[in-house]
Amino acid sequence: MRSRVEELRHSLYTIIYQANTPAGKGFDIALILCILASVLVMVLDSVASLNQRHGEFFLLAEWFFTGLFTVEYILRIFCIHKPSKYIFSFYGIIDLLAIVPFYLSLFISGTHYLQVVRILRVLRVFRVLKLMRFINQSNLLLNALLASRLKISIFLFTVTTLLVVFGSAMYLIEGPENGFSNIPVSIYWAVVTLTTVGFGDITPKTDLGRGVASLVMIVGYAIIAVPTGIFTAELSREMRKDSGGLDKRTCTRCRAHGHQADANYCRICSTELSPPASREDHQSA
Amino acid sequence: MRSRVEELRHSLYTIIYQANTPAGKGFDIALILCILASVLVMVLDSVASLNQRHGEFFLLAEWFFTGLFTVEYILRIFCIHKPSKYIFSFYGIIDLLAIVPFYLSLFISGTHYLQVVRILRVLRVFRVLKLMRFINQSNLLLNALLASRLKISIFLFTVTTLLVVFGSAMYLIEGPENGFSNIPVSIYWAVVTLTTVGFGDITPKTDLGRGVASLVMIVGYAIIAVPTGIFTAELSREMRKDSGGLDKRTCTRCRAHGHQADANYCRICSTELSPPASREDHQSA
Amino acid sequence: MRSRVEELRHSLYTIIYQANTPAGKGFDIALILCILASVLVMVLDSVASLNQRHGEFFLLAEWFFTGLFTVEYILRIFCIHKPSKYIFSFYGIIDLLAIVPFYLSLFISGTHYLQVVRILRVLRVFRVLKLMRFINQSNLLLNALLASRLKISIFLFTVTTLLVVFGSAMYLIEGPENGFSNIPVSIYWAVVTLTTVGFGDITPKTDLGRGVASLVMIVGYAIIAVPTGIFTAELSREMRKDSGGLDKRTCTRCRAHGHQADANYCRICSTELSPPASREDHQSA
Amino acid sequence: MRSRVEELRHSLYTIIYQANTPAGKGFDIALILCILASVLVMVLDSVASLNQRHGEFFLLAEWFFTGLFTVEYILRIFCIHKPSKYIFSFYGIIDLLAIVPFYLSLFISGTHYLQVVRILRVLRVFRVLKLMRFINQSNLLLNALLASRLKISIFLFTVTTLLVVFGSAMYLIEGPENGFSNIPVSIYWAVVTLTTVGFGDITPKTDLGRGVASLVMIVGYAIIAVPTGIFTAELSREMRKDSGGLDKRTCTRCRAHGHQADANYCRICSTELSPPASREDHQSA
Repeated sequence: MRSRVEELRHSLYTIIYQANTPAGKGFDIALILCILASVLVMVLDSVASLNQRHGEFFLLAEWFFTGLFTVEYILRIFCIHKPSKYIFSFYGIIDLLAIVPFYLSLFISGTHYLQVVRILRVLRVFRVLKLMRFINQSNLLLNALLASRLKISIFLFTVTTLLVVFGSAMYLIEGPENGFSNIPVSIYWAVVTLTTVGFGDITPKTDLGRGVASLVMIVGYAIIAVPTGIFTAELSREMRKDSGGLDKRTCTRCRAHGHQADANYCRICSTELSPPASREDHQSA
Repeated sequence: MRSRVEELRHSLYTIIYQANTPAGKGFDIALILCILASVLVMVLDSVASLNQRHGEFFLLAEWFFTGLFTVEYILRIFCIHKPSKYIFSFYGIIDLLAIVPFYLSLFISGTHYLQVVRILRVLRVFRVLKLMRFINQSNLLLNALLASRLKISIFLFTVTTLLVVFGSAMYLIEGPENGFSNIPVSIYWAVVTLTTVGFGDITPKTDLGRGVASLVMIVGYAIIAVPTGIFTAELSREMRKDSGGLDKRTCTRCRAHGHQADANYCRICSTELSPPASREDHQSA
Repeated sequence: MRSRVEELRHSLYTIIYQANTPAGKGFDIALILCILASVLVMVLDSVASLNQRHGEFFLLAEWFFTGLFTVEYILRIFCIHKPSKYIFSFYGIIDLLAIVPFYLSLFISGTHYLQVVRILRVLRVFRVLKLMRFINQSNLLLNALLASRLKISIFLFTVTTLLVVFGSAMYLIEGPENGFSNIPVSIYWAVVTLTTVGFGDITPKTDLGRGVASLVMIVGYAIIAVPTGIFTAELSREMRKDSGGLDKRTCTRCRAHGHQADANYCRICSTELSPPASREDHQSA
Repeated sequence: MRSRVEELRHSLYTIIYQANTPAGKGFDIALILCILASVLVMVLDSVASLNQRHGEFFLLAEWFFTGLFTVEYILRIFCIHKPSKYIFSFYGIIDLLAIVPFYLSLFISGTHYLQVVRILRVLRVFRVLKLMRFINQSNLLLNALLASRLKISIFLFTVTTLLVVFGSAMYLIEGPENGFSNIPVSIYWAVVTLTTVGFGDITPKTDLGRGVASLVMIVGYAIIAVPTGIFTAELSREMRKDSGGLDKRTCTRCRAHGHQADANYCRICSTELSPPASREDHQSA
């Protein structure tokens, strides 16, 4: 009896947590479709006219998807060896947050809780974060981003300092009469301008203010080069590393190195090379 | 008799589908000019004041260009070996769409079909897509784009998730009273902001909303680095490959290729290789 | 007598057209300052309040600078060997345009020519183009731009096609009632949106229009990667070429190449190398 | 007695000016937190509603932080060997400016000096510049920026010329009646447009103006590639230099250095070199 439950748990684990079997792949695709559909329902539900016309259908769909995700959540806890490891992981929390708001909204009634109900209803949209699980974590992009972490922090720190300096300067120059009501608002304007978004809800009116604004814009236009340069250089390096330049064998006669991964003989002097290290790695793995 | 038709078809095929003869080149240039002129007529025809003054000339020009493109379409079908291959290709459909709206608009009369006629008239502008045929498909840019396809998909997927999350958060924070009427509209605002377009038709009014908006802008400003980095790194690699890493020597004994530029011996079987082509090029030059 | 004029012409030529003598450098710096000062006068002159107060000073300054540039123009023609070569060059025309508007404005009087006078007055601002002469033409940036000419043309061509397609689609969807009065205006909107400028003077109001607009924005946000990637890859290559990887010597014993420019012996097998080619080039030059 | 003061000065110097001891690190972190807290107080103080409610607390906090920074300033002067070197350095001036406005505002009273007091109060926000001290100066980013200094200057010079030309052209085309009141304002518009900020406070209304504006936008969209390309190429080079092109071996006979990573023999005198460091690193690791 015990072993059958174990068997079930094991096969469920393979289906839910792994993607290298046909069943596991099928489960993943079904889950992605369910997430997308449920997010779509949430999004459309927020449109007043659609809510009035199809409100009941949306509620039904919501019951269905919440039920589904609840079953998924319970099965994930059931079939994992150490449930706590899943429950307190990033995706464990996201999975819980994807179902809790609906159940909470059922227990709240009375008109002055409507605001809370609305918030809970919208919170379910963040279910979309469940999708992040399906992005392969071990990719080049992430490596490049992690490798450029420190450089990008320095950049963001410099940008923040610039934003405070420019925001305060504009508050002094333009003042509350031109919409720069206080320093936080001026810093908000500086963000809007430096990032080249430019809403136009707050704009400088004085000549000096327009001069400083021009400076902010040109700075913002030019320093976009910095994060782009950092990431591009880092990604180029990752890609070069990835594409095979890493054979560490040295020719015993002429000491040439940098051989290709499939080389048997030294390309310079034709001496036989030892079998490549990377191939050995794969055999031992 | 039969063979003369065959001959005609063959020479037409050379002119219409190929560009390496003087006649073929001339045909291509004439076609490009016709497309540009007909699109220009369409565009100007949509301006009310010009339409009132030169409406008849525009109609005449339209008769002329549609006739021309109809002849082109028929000839393309006539001279190709397998007409179905052309008709159902991307450009076959574009070529058909370039003439059909005009003919359709002739058969529709009555005042309440005016809307349809206007749509048909505008659809003819998409004739500009006929020009895409003349972009050489086998270029570095396309290769680089194709090679970075997967990475860019992951990027777009992450951006979409961010848009949904930020859009929903702003809907909660600002609410319908500040223009964020529902989640689709809030997501539209998030697109406008994250891409640094910043129309300013919808802007946050609350302090928290402005804080989150600042975050969206800085994220949008910084992550433009990602597609740029991907494409740049990929294009650099394509260009490096193109400019000489592609050693074309083949081992005379084991037929291995893909040797390094400084290789003297085959890395697979140690046979001596001919001197690299690039060196010879310089000697003969 | 003749030779003294010749001498004068020669020394003037050295001063005016060359920058490697102290006098030539001094002339260049004085000219740059004059251009900047005269452009500044033009710019300030256009401000109504300043024009009312300092109008006479501005006129005087204009007389002075025009006189100066006239003398410069005459001297340039006088001291060059083939005057026509200068007169019809890009800078010859710019230099002429820098003085002609002022003289023309003197001969025009009467109230209904005021518009022409204003245009002529503003045209003098383009004097700033005289400064382009001082940018060193033989730099890496220009080489990189020229090398990526074709790729950037293809990019601009694709962007233009996209603009026509998106503009026409938005004209159909939004129509004149939402500000998309005709196709040229809709294409203008598409430019504003695709380049992520986003003035906000014309914005989509319908749901479908906002959806298509979102697509335009995301496309514009992503394809900025293309010109950036092209230019970066090209500039990297120019810089690599520039920094010395071009030694073409090959070791006579082990056939290794890629030696450094100052190498006397093969780094792989210690055989003596022939003197580097680049040094020979310099000796023969 | 004398030596104890010297000792104190020395240990203070270690704590204040150096960061490699625990005490020095602690001092730095405490200083950063104080700066951030004092800037936050300044920023919040500028919000009218907060100022009314918590004005007294803000004043108290300001007394506290100014006292603290005054003590810091005095200690910095006290413990350095040559005080003048610190006082007239960039950070010496910033440190002084961080405390002077507050003391000045104490001596100014009377209603018509209120404006000055407000300015002095806001000036204290620039205390945030004290943080710049903690960015490591010897990083790759700064090297890359310095190396690309000249190229970026040429770029900015070209952009400035473009701004003057486009601004003047738009002033001619649109004129004061469409918001382009004078050339400085038109240049401001050109900055807003070329940098793709696009506030929308001034927008072209005429057809020709919109055409030229489209050109400005496409130019601004495309030439962002230039600073990005410059910085990326420069940073890639810095990183390549950093990551191992810098072979540290020195020839034992002729002292030549800068050998290539795969060199076995000195390229200058053919003496055998020790195996490259990077290979040893891998063996010992």
